[in-house]
Amino acid sequence: MNHQDSSGDRGLVIVGSVALDTIATPFETRKDVLGGSASYACAAASFFIPAGMVGVVGTDFPEAHMEKYRKFGIDLAGLQKDEGETFRWSGVYEPDMINRKTLSTELNVFASFTPELPAGYSRAPFLLLGNISPGLQVHVLSQAENAQFVVADTMDLWINTQRDELMDVVSKINMLTLNDSEARLMTGEHNIVKCAEQIMGYGPDYVVIKKGEHGAVLFGKNEIFLVPAYPVGEVCDPTGAGDSFAGGMMGYLAAAKATDGAAVKKALLYGSVIASFGVEKFGLDRLEMLTLSDIDRRLNELKSMIGVA
Amino acid sequence: MNHQDSSGDRGLVIVGSVALDTIATPFETRKDVLGGSASYACAAASFFIPAGMVGVVGTDFPEAHMEKYRKFGIDLAGLQKDEGETFRWSGVYEPDMINRKTLSTELNVFASFTPELPAGYSRAPFLLLGNISPGLQVHVLSQAENAQFVVADTMDLWINTQRDELMDVVSKINMLTLNDSEARLMTGEHNIVKCAEQIMGYGPDYVVIKKGEHGAVLFGKNEIFLVPAYPVGEVCDPTGAGDSFAGGMMGYLAAAKATDGAAVKKALLYGSVIASFGVEKFGLDRLEMLTLSDIDRRLNELKSMIGVA
Repeated sequence: MNHQDSSGDRGLVIVGSVALDTIATPFETRKDVLGGSASYACAAASFFIPAGMVGVVGTDFPEAHMEKYRKFGIDLAGLQKDEGETFRWSGVYEPDMINRKTLSTELNVFASFTPELPAGYSRAPFLLLGNISPGLQVHVLSQAENAQFVVADTMDLWINTQRDELMDVVSKINMLTLNDSEARLMTGEHNIVKCAEQIMGYGPDYVVIKKGEHGAVLFGKNEIFLVPAYPVGEVCDPTGAGDSFAGGMMGYLAAAKATDGAAVKKALLYGSVIASFGVEKFGLDRLEMLTLSDIDRRLNELKSMIGVA
Repeated sequence: MNHQDSSGDRGLVIVGSVALDTIATPFETRKDVLGGSASYACAAASFFIPAGMVGVVGTDFPEAHMEKYRKFGIDLAGLQKDEGETFRWSGVYEPDMINRKTLSTELNVFASFTPELPAGYSRAPFLLLGNISPGLQVHVLSQAENAQFVVADTMDLWINTQRDELMDVVSKINMLTLNDSEARLMTGEHNIVKCAEQIMGYGPDYVVIKKGEHGAVLFGKNEIFLVPAYPVGEVCDPTGAGDSFAGGMMGYLAAAKATDGAAVKKALLYGSVIASFGVEKFGLDRLEMLTLSDIDRRLNELKSMIGVA
């Protein structure tokens, strides 16, 4: 069954996981927190544009969460509801609130998920392939006949287990985002400048190396842009920060209908700021309370912290 | 015997270690490389001002190294030569070129070192207490009757073994510089914003948290400044990067005779850029070939990478 909550062409389509996460931090444990890469990315994009979400949930997925998505303005025409349970992930953060250990992963309905784009989605100019298997990412990409700017996120699991499929994705996109450790794993290089050069050689115009609390670095043809991270005084739950970062960036670009270098840089700053809010509470809790003026205020604060005032 | 190579009041005095380092990287091993916190810091400062070096060498210290110091314009009136061998350190870098293991430390003449400031040094307005024992740092500070801006660097060893003496130093200085892991060790806090607030509570106006390849963060009363790191494509030897960073910063401030916030921020950018050059070759080799116009060119490049162009 598809939720066809709205119609019309989408400016931005985001495919990824929808999860019910059980998250343990040194301070608190929360069960069945609404998460997954699609949730974080669509919520983050929503400050700029109502994204179309492509994902799958089970029949146990609470209606309250659907309502939460709608409040964010997320379009749910591409969110399938399949017989079975929703994807569940459970992890525990170390006292540093950065490193974490996965305790369990139950794929459930995600195991047989084949993402299909509704008609209005396949013509979207902006496409974010959130962190799912590269096989699924390629399947979505093949349906996106009108995509002008495609960003894919990935992780160590796919680099280790589906390298060929991942390289296929990487050869077809405009930007790859990945962690510094994943960039090293993908290339066999330690130095991130060399990592990025090598990855750009695989095809993408841009590589964004994510460094968590240290920000990110954008590499493009003959340019480097250092994306600062806002120093958050109270980190509650870092889950989904990378997805919020990518979603916020893509939301800004899709709303601005821009892909030039200046727009990409501004978009990355927005992504960084939205991610910095997101970690202040569990799941989407902080983003739910957030306004664009909060975001702009922190963006200006961040700019003044790097001497751009 | 003291080397009294020049006279007159110094604008900047730097106390620290002088070492002959044996450095193993995954690519190359070098023996008896001229190093130590005072060497790196004075060399880095030299692009702005001839600093007075306070330290100790043994009778085995090569005259060629003294000549190297003189070429940097370093004043050597405060460099003692004592009977015995020069301090030696040996370490091996992991493949990441970031983490390292100390293989041996031979204090030699450093074991009985008591730094004494020549007359022209005790009136210096700018004082950098490089990474030596806090007991020695306090001893130097007590002789610096005219110090207006005092920066101290420290390390995990002193936090673990001489905490009381270190806290005494920290209470008497304007700025403390230390690594993020050391800030966590000192305060028992993980979050670096909280670490910095706590350390400022001990006395200093500024805390600079150093994060290696990720840059540094300046914390002051009601302000935060994110110091970017230039992305170096070829890291040869990271030894002394923190010392070059601090030395470059202090060199700029002492030459500008300024301690206001804007000057401190500009000084930190200079320190970051000089440190980024320093790691490109072993020891002081890269700094020896460097000019202020090279530094200014990379500073502008770094600024454009953060959108200040």
